[in-house]
This record gives sequence, structure tokens and C-alpha cells, in this order.
Amino acid sequence: MRMEAFVKPFTRDDLGRCCIHTMTTKPWGLAEAARAYAAAGIGGITVWREHLEGAPLAASAGLLRDSGLRVVSLCRGGFFPGTTRAARTAALDDNRTAIDEAAAIGAPLVVLVCGAVPGMPLAEARKQITEGIAAVADHAAQAGVRLGIEPLHPMYADARSAVNTLGQANGMAEALGSPAVGVTVDVYHVWWDPDLEAEIRRAGEKLLSFHVCDWRTPTRDLLNDRGLMGEGCIPLRQIRGWVEQTGFDGPVEVEIFSDAYWGMDQAAYLERVVDAWAAHC
Amino acid sequence: MRMEAFVKPFTRDDLGRCCIHTMTTKPWGLAEAARAYAAAGIGGITVWREHLEGAPLAASAGLLRDSGLRVVSLCRGGFFPGTTRAARTAALDDNRTAIDEAAAIGAPLVVLVCGAVPGMPLAEARKQITEGIAAVADHAAQAGVRLGIEPLHPMYADARSAVNTLGQANGMAEALGSPAVGVTVDVYHVWWDPDLEAEIRRAGEKLLSFHVCDWRTPTRDLLNDRGLMGEGCIPLRQIRGWVEQTGFDGPVEVEIFSDAYWGMDQAAYLERVVDAWAAHC
Repeated sequence: MRMEAFVKPFTRDDLGRCCIHTMTTKPWGLAEAARAYAAAGIGGITVWREHLEGAPLAASAGLLRDSGLRVVSLCRGGFFPGTTRAARTAALDDNRTAIDEAAAIGAPLVVLVCGAVPGMPLAEARKQITEGIAAVADHAAQAGVRLGIEPLHPMYADARSAVNTLGQANGMAEALGSPAVGVTVDVYHVWWDPDLEAEIRRAGEKLLSFHVCDWRTPTRDLLNDRGLMGEGCIPLRQIRGWVEQTGFDGPVEVEIFSDAYWGMDQAAYLERVVDAWAAHC
Repeated sequence: MRMEAFVKPFTRDDLGRCCIHTMTTKPWGLAEAARAYAAAGIGGITVWREHLEGAPLAASAGLLRDSGLRVVSLCRGGFFPGTTRAARTAALDDNRTAIDEAAAIGAPLVVLVCGAVPGMPLAEARKQITEGIAAVADHAAQAGVRLGIEPLHPMYADARSAVNTLGQANGMAEALGSPAVGVTVDVYHVWWDPDLEAEIRRAGEKLLSFHVCDWRTPTRDLLNDRGLMGEGCIPLRQIRGWVEQTGFDGPVEVEIFSDAYWGMDQAAYLERVVDAWAAHC
């Protein structure tokens, strides 16, 4: 716990550094979410593409601009591997669209959930992911948007991402060598990793964004049972210390998928999110 | 997939190398399981301590001896970390008991699920695990029983094991430096690991046992939804190739926890297990 000495605990006065993912309050539409986050004094918003659907992009961009919130990132691009050429080409097109959407809403970053195909060897999936990011990196650079390779927890290696450690994400970002490409650290995916501190240090300036939530015991569902910060066993403040040692001083983003919390009144839930953020991050 | 060339696919003629964990057919008692495995031509059995409960140890040892099955290992020891001295001492006592039970039933190996305590820093849990194994290693050596450190999937890092990669298990076994201590490789826990091939090679002669099953997509439960070999995405034969390159020619053990399969007629299920083992391992 030696790094904690370097981390000043947050208070509600720090909410400018708090960012909420629209998927955290999934039942809300984009307008409702933006209004509520801003009213709560939260500084930033990360927009999921699901929350751009059903409205003209310009309208979404306008309401975000008017909200006063900092648009931190767009979630999510990626899902590069495919078993056919057509599928892989469609994935590249979709990533270019995501990059354009990010630019349109003022998001400087697209987070990449890189993809995996059940039965495809992981080594092949990783090769296709590297090729896919390489194919869209220039488009991102030209749009002024960066790409954050997010390692996903190994329990998602079958169908969501063949990139499962920060070491792999760092290696991929280094191999690609594009100033547009870096990594995203989500505590849920990497907290268990014995190499985490060293790999965060290695990421350095390539560490583009930082997501928090908590790991519940027991975890009742592989996808939608994330905990609020403080409800689980993840050493949030220690990991934030490691992240900030790289020079990162950006938003600390709340990304919680939870059937239980999505079933709550979302305004009451947002208050709990803010309290948990201020108390435990 | 280059290693597959070195691996001869199994057939039913190889069932002498098949071993079944009693927990795979959890509804059966030990006598029923041993009788059915032997009748199916299976060579080995790994006994879970749950299946030693409720009968004198000598009686279980006798029925195993009479079954003609090779007793491959006892599952499981471990769970070393604790928040009190009393808890840690009780864990050591329980591990010594497990070692004695293994010796009594003719099992040359106790598999260790090392333990974790929600909220205890993983580094502290790992330290306590190393100390715990060190404390019982001589007892194991004197009993002629070895200890297999089994890395568990990172989704169990909260409450079951702070050892989550084969690299960690190897490092721990090397640091302990006891001839009684090695590692156990279960494909379910490590198949996603980008360092798996190298770490299996590193384990070498310390690779004491090898477990198989498969990873289902989707996985509906974190604990009890393992698949039969061939039902999922784990490259079983490739991993067996890496394992056998170390010189390992021991049993290929089926360890499946599955609410769905436990709900089936276990005799019919055992036939499916044997078919899957011969077809996919």
C-alpha cells in the first residue's frame, strides 16, 4: 500500500475530475444523463454509442456542448477479429464511423474493446486486432481522436477481447507506434494482475483513460454485476496512485454495468455513485 | 497450432491415461464413482475430500485399492490466507490432515487452491500462501506426498486464490525450492494466458498434474458452468502438446463443475465424458 501516501483522497470538491459513463445509468437517454450529471457537479461524461442511437448526431453533439460537461471518450470501438474478409472490413468501417462520431461530439478518445471470436486461436485474434488498429490509426490521427486499447478481464477472452492484460495492451500500443494509440485502464479488468504496477508505469504517457467500479463477492453474473466503488475488493486508491505516478491527471471514470442498479431509480442511484466516488476513489 | 503436430490424438484405447475427478460426478458417492470409472475402462481417479466424508478413511482407501484405479491426487488443500493467527494455524492443520488423507488413500499429490480473502491485499495473500506452503512442505515430503500449486482463473482472485497465473505458481514453487512442491495446470484457469506456452516450459518437471474441461460461450455461472471437452473454445490438444513437451506423460484429468451435468443421469453423463475425452483431448 506504499503508493497510497502519494494519493490525496477525493472529496465532493473534486467532482470536476469525476466522469460517468452513460452506460452506468443505462435507462436514461443521453439528454437526461447529461442534465443529471451536470446538475450533480460532475465534470465529465463518457458516451456509449447506444446513447447516440435514435437521434441526429449533431443534436447529440449540441446537447453535450450545451451541458458544459467535458466529453471524455466514446465507447466503444474495436471488435476487429472476424472469420471472413467481409466481417473484418465491416469492423474497420465501423471503427472509422466511431472515430467520426467521437470527433463530432468532441470526444478526444475512442475506447477499444478489441474483440475475440469463440474458437479462433487467441494468437490469430491478437494479430487481427493489431492489423485492425493499424488500419484505422491514421484516420483517428487525422480526426484528432486517439484510440485506447482496453485490456479486458480474462473471463472475456472467449468472445469479447483477446487482449487480457495491460502488458499485452502496452505491447500492442508500442508495436503500433502511433501517437494516436494508447491504452485504457479499467480496474475491473486488471486489478488481479501481479504485474499491474509495473505495467501502469510502462504505459506512461500512453495511459489515456482510467475507469473505476468494484468487484463484488460473490459476483453473480459475468457481465452485469459490477459493484459501486467501495462495495468490493479492488484497491482503488492504490491503483489510482500508480496511474497518477505516470503523470495522468485526467478524469476518474465510473463505468458500472449492473442489472441491480439499472433497476433502481436512476436519480437516487446517481447520488450513490457520487458518494461512492468521493469516498473510495 | 504448430505444437499439435507433436500430439497424438487420444482414442478410447488410451483411457488408461484418463482420470476423472469425483467432483465431476458430484452426485455419486465414492464407491459408486470408483466402480463406474473402472467399469468404463478409465485409468485414474482424483478424489475430492467431500467424497471422503461420512465414511472411515480406511474404508475409502480399501475401496479405492480394490477398484484397480490409480489414485492420481486429492483435491484440495490450500486456503492459507487468514485475517487472524488462529485462522492461519487452522489452515495449516487442515493441510496436514489433507496430506495424511492423501497418503492414506495412496494419492501422491494434494492439489492446492491457495486461497484469498476479500479485501486482503493480494500481495499479502500471496505472502501468506508462500509461508503456508513452506510450513507444510516437510510434512508432505515425509508422507511421500507432493503439493501442486494450481493457479486459478483471475475471476477467482477475490475469494478463492491470489495465485492467478502459471507464472506466479512457477515463481512460488521455485522460491520454495522443495522437491515436494510443484504446479498443477488446469486449462480452464490458464487457457487465455499469453505466456502459457513459455510458463508450461518453465514448469518442466515441476508440472505435477494436468486438468481439462472447456470454456462455454456464454458462461452462465462463474463457478458451475464448465463445459465438456469440445464444447468450448479452449485449444485442449495444443495445450496438452505443450504439457507433454515437458516430459509429462501422466493422466489427463477431467474436472467439470456443472449444475447442468450434475442434473443428468450420471451414468449417461459419464459416457459423454469418456467420448469427449477421447475425441477432443
